[in-house]
Amino acid sequence: MQHFFQQLSTFLESKYILIQDEDKAPYLTDWRKRFTGKALAVLLPSTSAEVASIVRLCAQHHVSIVPQGGHTGFCGGATPDNSGTQIILNLKRMNQIREIDIANQTITLEAGCILQNVQVKAAEQGFLFPLSLGAEGSCMIGGNLATNAGGTNVLRYGNTRDLCLGLEVVTATGEIWNGIKGLRKDNTGYDLRDLFIGSEGTLGIITAAVMKLYPLPISQWTTLVACENITSSIALLNLFQKRANSLLTGFEMMTQESLELNEKHFPHMANPLQGKPPFTILIELSDHESEAHVKQLLEMILEEAFESQLISDAVIASNLTQANAFWHMREHITLAQAEEGANLKHDITIPLSALDSFIQETDELLRDRFPGIRIINFGHLGDGNLHYNIAPPLGADPKTFNASNEKPIHELVYAQVERCNGSISAEHGVGQLKLDDLRAHKGDVAHELMKTLKRALDPQNILNPHKVVSI
Amino acid sequence: MQHFFQQLSTFLESKYILIQDEDKAPYLTDWRKRFTGKALAVLLPSTSAEVASIVRLCAQHHVSIVPQGGHTGFCGGATPDNSGTQIILNLKRMNQIREIDIANQTITLEAGCILQNVQVKAAEQGFLFPLSLGAEGSCMIGGNLATNAGGTNVLRYGNTRDLCLGLEVVTATGEIWNGIKGLRKDNTGYDLRDLFIGSEGTLGIITAAVMKLYPLPISQWTTLVACENITSSIALLNLFQKRANSLLTGFEMMTQESLELNEKHFPHMANPLQGKPPFTILIELSDHESEAHVKQLLEMILEEAFESQLISDAVIASNLTQANAFWHMREHITLAQAEEGANLKHDITIPLSALDSFIQETDELLRDRFPGIRIINFGHLGDGNLHYNIAPPLGADPKTFNASNEKPIHELVYAQVERCNGSISAEHGVGQLKLDDLRAHKGDVAHELMKTLKRALDPQNILNPHKVVSI
Repeated sequence: MQHFFQQLSTFLESKYILIQDEDKAPYLTDWRKRFTGKALAVLLPSTSAEVASIVRLCAQHHVSIVPQGGHTGFCGGATPDNSGTQIILNLKRMNQIREIDIANQTITLEAGCILQNVQVKAAEQGFLFPLSLGAEGSCMIGGNLATNAGGTNVLRYGNTRDLCLGLEVVTATGEIWNGIKGLRKDNTGYDLRDLFIGSEGTLGIITAAVMKLYPLPISQWTTLVACENITSSIALLNLFQKRANSLLTGFEMMTQESLELNEKHFPHMANPLQGKPPFTILIELSDHESEAHVKQLLEMILEEAFESQLISDAVIASNLTQANAFWHMREHITLAQAEEGANLKHDITIPLSALDSFIQETDELLRDRFPGIRIINFGHLGDGNLHYNIAPPLGADPKTFNASNEKPIHELVYAQVERCNGSISAEHGVGQLKLDDLRAHKGDVAHELMKTLKRALDPQNILNPHKVVSI
Repeated sequence: MQHFFQQLSTFLESKYILIQDEDKAPYLTDWRKRFTGKALAVLLPSTSAEVASIVRLCAQHHVSIVPQGGHTGFCGGATPDNSGTQIILNLKRMNQIREIDIANQTITLEAGCILQNVQVKAAEQGFLFPLSLGAEGSCMIGGNLATNAGGTNVLRYGNTRDLCLGLEVVTATGEIWNGIKGLRKDNTGYDLRDLFIGSEGTLGIITAAVMKLYPLPISQWTTLVACENITSSIALLNLFQKRANSLLTGFEMMTQESLELNEKHFPHMANPLQGKPPFTILIELSDHESEAHVKQLLEMILEEAFESQLISDAVIASNLTQANAFWHMREHITLAQAEEGANLKHDITIPLSALDSFIQETDELLRDRFPGIRIINFGHLGDGNLHYNIAPPLGADPKTFNASNEKPIHELVYAQVERCNGSISAEHGVGQLKLDDLRAHKGDVAHELMKTLKRALDPQNILNPHKVVSI
């Protein structure tokens, strides 16, 4: 590889070519610490031209490339394999905001921009950049695009895909596709943009993007309500969609079992609703008119929900601190699970009309077959997206339990998902974690189409090989 | 071809195999009457399985296929070539609404459903199916998806692409991809759905789709306002986006020159605004709360617009009849142009921040070089989408003028579009009309990527060859 590094050094300063073990180490293990790989080197380019040069050089030397941003993914998509022959191409130095276009309501960003910084920069200009998720303090926009990240605002603003208007991408042959356009309509041929979005760096390397901005809402109201069952939770969702329409920006569901685990590890985060309701729903309305308007609307809808017996209790946050506390309660479930020990995660989507039967049947099948397990079920109900996670029985050693039960539990859950015409990966992607699951559940025609696309766009198989799809 | 037709008759009734000239004729000429082709036969299957059988048979006999729906496209995408060797695969018999899922707010449709029928069926269940465009009485959902159709509701609800959650597609090898899922989140691999959407039948044949529904608004208010220039029109748009946010469902622009042409051919459609304002803007707000609420909001925003001198006049429609009259005025510009004679159409998008300079410079360049021409400029300003059409000078024979000036006028306009980082086809697609323009303006990297995708997914080149991209 001497020749490779010699050529590399002609266009990338040596301090941006990490080859010592201690320098590479921070880039080798994924956020959940499920995967650790090795790497020939970690490269830190700062321009698209450098990225393109790296790809051309790698193509010439048959070196495969693992693109990486904030490295916060849940599926090991940005973690290298164990061969030690791959390079990591980390884009964190490509962190410029190239332009904020006020009239067009767009922001042009490089892949290495940290999500939270983008939110802040947009807000300084009076705009909302709606993408919001747990890792926003460290995840990067390139990774958000590569995985089509979801989060809590999807209900109103869509996934990362829906926020993107244009891309700049380095292809597997090291060419730069300049698709950096801020257009709401563009029907000039195949949708290259959406093909690269969500492809997890296996078809091209996203180096920059034009993203949509929205006017900042001037008032947000958050409430927690108690529902007896999923059917009434969905009827409540439909009621809010009908009355509040696009003012509805959050509709999150937490089972009592999830909130009890939360309270166990974070006692100050007890459910403020009395009587341990089976389902607690967090609802957020965002308004561009006035605080009085949105408050009145919220109260009117809640009144109708009480009258229709869809809810049995409600607490409206009286100030921003309390609203944040409601959201923290929702967000801390994941942390409570981590405190409790290793667990089996399922990031799934079910059509809302099938959600009730999915949960009832799957809960029952699992509890029958794996007595004592705890089902930590919560998620973005408005999108039909459940984080349907399984913790071992109290007292059982998580590692031992998971080692023997991970596979049958995943298989049972994913078979149920397939039966309900759902998705085995709602918002976290595939990476290496779900490579086999995807092959098993995607359907042969779709899987063959994916392989055809991979072979066509990356015939040398050098872009993040054996992630998403293997050829 | 005897063997071909023999095999065909084993699975498709002879009455659905049109081979007589008089039977084929209605399928051979495009809506604008720019293209007329020939066809070996017109086939009318009624199931996806029949479509798949036809494709397999065609692949075996190297017969190429022109998929067709309502045949209302503007770019000849569904019109066969002159060889007489292609078959037209018209999907109008696949016109079942398979399901309306109330809780999930989705509708599952076959490709041959007429758009207006879908709107009506959705409304009967209290839902809005937002796609709306001039041809809605005859265009079909398969064609809307194949061309990623736009229309007047894109500002709020997006293009056809944004309304689609899942697809059923027959591939070039005659397999059926079952991607019929009604999920708001699904990150299981490459975005096959969006690759087929907008590919105009060149990568696969869309046979069914799951589309989003929205709660019907309970009140809509429509107004016409007078703006002095594009800069204030865009500032007005931004004001409405800030104050009314997603209640803003229409923002259409008409130049005075367009409205005068309208009035010439349809005298009852005179601009109700006095003093011939340079730009007339049609604004629609749609509300889910109450008539009083939206009316008050509209008046408040208009007041602010008057105070900021963004507008000089406004007429609020006092009832539904008047609101419809405003919309008819907008929609009749195309018809007035047709009455006036052949004209040169440009369906383009420009980033809003570049729109003013685009119009000023392009108007000037055109008027300098082609004295006396009339610029009929109107469109979906909220999306940056102009229908920037050129009529010959008064008294000039349109055919003669267009024959000698079509090419240089297109070239001038498209060069300006490229300079402004815009799109040469906003919502009408490419078809055969813009095949060469696309090659000239898409950029080499993107064009090569498109060819690579076409070769990969349709290696025999039997699906709508020489539309969108030639391989």
